[in-house]
Amino acid sequence: MPGDRRAHRRPRRRRLRPGPARGVSARALAADLRRELGGAAVPDGDLRHYGHDATEAHGVHGTPAAVVLPADTAGVAAALRCCDRLGVAVVPRGGGTGLAAGAVPLGGEVVLGLERLTAVRALEPERWRMHVEAGLTTGHVHRLARESGLLFPPDPGAAEQSQIGGNVATNAGGPHAFKYGVTGRWVTGLEAVLASGEVLTVGGPLRKDVAGYDLRSLLVGSEGTLAVITAAWLALTPMPEARLPVAAAFDSVGAGCDAIDAIVASGLTPAILEYLDAGTLEAAGAAFPAALPAPARMLVIAEADGSAAEAARVRSELVEVLGDGALALHAPQARGDVEALWRWRDGVSTAVAAHRGGKMGEDVVVPFERLRDVIAATVEIGARHGLPACSWGHAGDGNVHATLLVRRDDAAELMRAQAAAEDLFAAAVALGGSVSGEHGLGWVKRGQLERQWAPAALDLHEGVKRLFDPHGRLNPGKKLARRDPPPGR
Amino acid sequence: MPGDRRAHRRPRRRRLRPGPARGVSARALAADLRRELGGAAVPDGDLRHYGHDATEAHGVHGTPAAVVLPADTAGVAAALRCCDRLGVAVVPRGGGTGLAAGAVPLGGEVVLGLERLTAVRALEPERWRMHVEAGLTTGHVHRLARESGLLFPPDPGAAEQSQIGGNVATNAGGPHAFKYGVTGRWVTGLEAVLASGEVLTVGGPLRKDVAGYDLRSLLVGSEGTLAVITAAWLALTPMPEARLPVAAAFDSVGAGCDAIDAIVASGLTPAILEYLDAGTLEAAGAAFPAALPAPARMLVIAEADGSAAEAARVRSELVEVLGDGALALHAPQARGDVEALWRWRDGVSTAVAAHRGGKMGEDVVVPFERLRDVIAATVEIGARHGLPACSWGHAGDGNVHATLLVRRDDAAELMRAQAAAEDLFAAAVALGGSVSGEHGLGWVKRGQLERQWAPAALDLHEGVKRLFDPHGRLNPGKKLARRDPPPGR
Repeated sequence: MPGDRRAHRRPRRRRLRPGPARGVSARALAADLRRELGGAAVPDGDLRHYGHDATEAHGVHGTPAAVVLPADTAGVAAALRCCDRLGVAVVPRGGGTGLAAGAVPLGGEVVLGLERLTAVRALEPERWRMHVEAGLTTGHVHRLARESGLLFPPDPGAAEQSQIGGNVATNAGGPHAFKYGVTGRWVTGLEAVLASGEVLTVGGPLRKDVAGYDLRSLLVGSEGTLAVITAAWLALTPMPEARLPVAAAFDSVGAGCDAIDAIVASGLTPAILEYLDAGTLEAAGAAFPAALPAPARMLVIAEADGSAAEAARVRSELVEVLGDGALALHAPQARGDVEALWRWRDGVSTAVAAHRGGKMGEDVVVPFERLRDVIAATVEIGARHGLPACSWGHAGDGNVHATLLVRRDDAAELMRAQAAAEDLFAAAVALGGSVSGEHGLGWVKRGQLERQWAPAALDLHEGVKRLFDPHGRLNPGKKLARRDPPPGR
Repeated sequence: MPGDRRAHRRPRRRRLRPGPARGVSARALAADLRRELGGAAVPDGDLRHYGHDATEAHGVHGTPAAVVLPADTAGVAAALRCCDRLGVAVVPRGGGTGLAAGAVPLGGEVVLGLERLTAVRALEPERWRMHVEAGLTTGHVHRLARESGLLFPPDPGAAEQSQIGGNVATNAGGPHAFKYGVTGRWVTGLEAVLASGEVLTVGGPLRKDVAGYDLRSLLVGSEGTLAVITAAWLALTPMPEARLPVAAAFDSVGAGCDAIDAIVASGLTPAILEYLDAGTLEAAGAAFPAALPAPARMLVIAEADGSAAEAARVRSELVEVLGDGALALHAPQARGDVEALWRWRDGVSTAVAAHRGGKMGEDVVVPFERLRDVIAATVEIGARHGLPACSWGHAGDGNVHATLLVRRDDAAELMRAQAAAEDLFAAAVALGGSVSGEHGLGWVKRGQLERQWAPAALDLHEGVKRLFDPHGRLNPGKKLARRDPPPGR
């Protein structure tokens, strides 16, 4: 392993590049990491699992040069120092549920999994907060809060697989974001490790802090390209006593969007304001836990929460506003019925995927009054590329899961879906929106920021990356502002 | 004006420094700015007003090289381009109500006032948002929202003087931050101008966006050191139907803090959770709009809000929790009485200042369970330096206005107050807190970040400044991470 040894002797002089440095074999790399971190942290055997995330369905996968699973922050720092010395790049990995290939080692990087960092460093329900390590699943965070009478509101999908560190790194959302905001709003402090191995702490159990520039918010949503998040201080809020959903079926997208506009304009504040369009109902409507009238072309689901009295009051107003123009209402109050409705909603994505065997979904976001436009554009763009398309999502936030239905094994369809996705991004930006409301850029949407940011802002984006990660060690090729950065950048 | 002309010919080669470049007289500078922006934008006459902010009381003031008051974003860009070309530094200025000298031209800079940028670019109550220029007063923003049945929750003091741009630039807080968060939470988009004159837009009327790094949050609270904020998209929320305060007097800090802890631990969510300690009551208690029992050593004020029924429910729970151990309760329900209570609270700072003629206040923040410790530390530190001291503030956020009472014309007392302030910062950090929860670092607390951030984080702070403002043109000497940055930085 001469290349390896040379790296040890002259760490500063090495020419740095993404992926394993020339002359460092995957085996030598694993041996080096094992020496640094102990054998338990560097598994061998079948590591294919670490080569993909939820984009595997469209054929995106990579091969890690090695997988390292440190047990704690010191281990993460040691792993990063080791990779820095060897000149190899690192892909940080949470639960692997990402939808933008942000955690996929496409350049033969070392995958650094956070799954063993699962300590609950502090659980302080009487102070509405907890301090947890990055590898704890989001579902676990939810349960810890709930058992103390508290709510951690962000509720992205796949809560039992996704990890809180990954949620922070992607600033994950979910239905509750309408009332409660996305993950970043609930993070008061972060511990993260820079590519150099230095441990950074910003914020803590403080509810306010304006002493320094907001580096915490910069790390939130940075998708593992600036630092590896190892722990977070999370703020919690008292658990609402009651949650009462109201689902309303409409005979057109126009009528459904009118109802959504009417809820917001009436000054009601539901916790959740979701929609599903006709194509989505076609794929997933059969399992809806109530009668869905045949001509339903759009379903709106709002949920009232709060004290029992407050939730009941808001629910009755939602029934009134949504009832005006709806084909039918389903407003369950019994706990089991409420849970059945949300279980159905959680399964929508899977049902849509099953409809033709596969799907390609993009989570564009628009100013919320343009919801009807982006719903129509999704169907129209699909048709233009010869693919059925549908959408559903977070209506109140204008955040749409615009989805193209494909046959997974049909390469031509996948190509057409790619082209359609580009049109979707263009449409969202033309409507004043953004190419991503939840999933991030990752690898799938690298460079798409160019559509919506001016050159000066793109330059700053690239400058932030250089500042935190001057050698391009962390998640190279992901969350790129420009697909082809100008020379010298 | 040979220096001036040379600057025009070779803008790129000039050695850049804060303050007017060598050879550029204040008069020549004003003439140049007038040529670029028109006479109306560059006033002459008595400009002393632009040389200070609310720290004038402790003798902090400067002299602007020139004052430029552009009428719009293009004017701000033209002014910054002009200053860039001439190699002079700029201090952006909102309403001049800052408490950290962040808008004071201490190095003879050009003051760039935003007061003429007062357009309401969009007011969309049915979508819970508005798009306003930086120079609009915060009070005006509040009124625009209220007239539409909406609430812009951040409520820092001096709302009729302070401007929304300044509020964003300092990430201002206020009592409502306990339930609703600080200014940054309500900003979905920003327009800002870089030192180069380039206009930057990040975000917009979108409720979610994770496409790029969060440059918006980086600008929020950056105190005019990264860019000049010219406009903001603000999110609003429906105005609560009722607001019902409950004030409770306690015979000790311990009893008052126990009550605050009990409110939070009981899962109640008041909109506001404030306190005033014994020294504050001594200075301001006489005007309290109800009987204040003589042995009162701490006052806690909580406020319930929401629908009429919800506010009444929370109010009755607050009465129960606070009543347990209180000497007396004052829980007005009539609108006039509620307003009288908050008017009194708004006047506390002035009453405290009047007590001995002057005050020096610091807005440290601690984890909220350390409130009793920082209240005690404030009094103890004052005593150690021979100064009466008191505190009041945002109990639920652990954010304390720790205040030393001084005679304004006593130089020795002012010096002792400075020394005491240093001890206060040290105490806050030792309690796990931060040197600033609301006011920012400005000039007064420049370098204090060193107490609480590790070197790697300080390096990143300085790197962010260099990235946005490579020539150190914007608000030099303010919001410094380190008082004496290491050489080469």
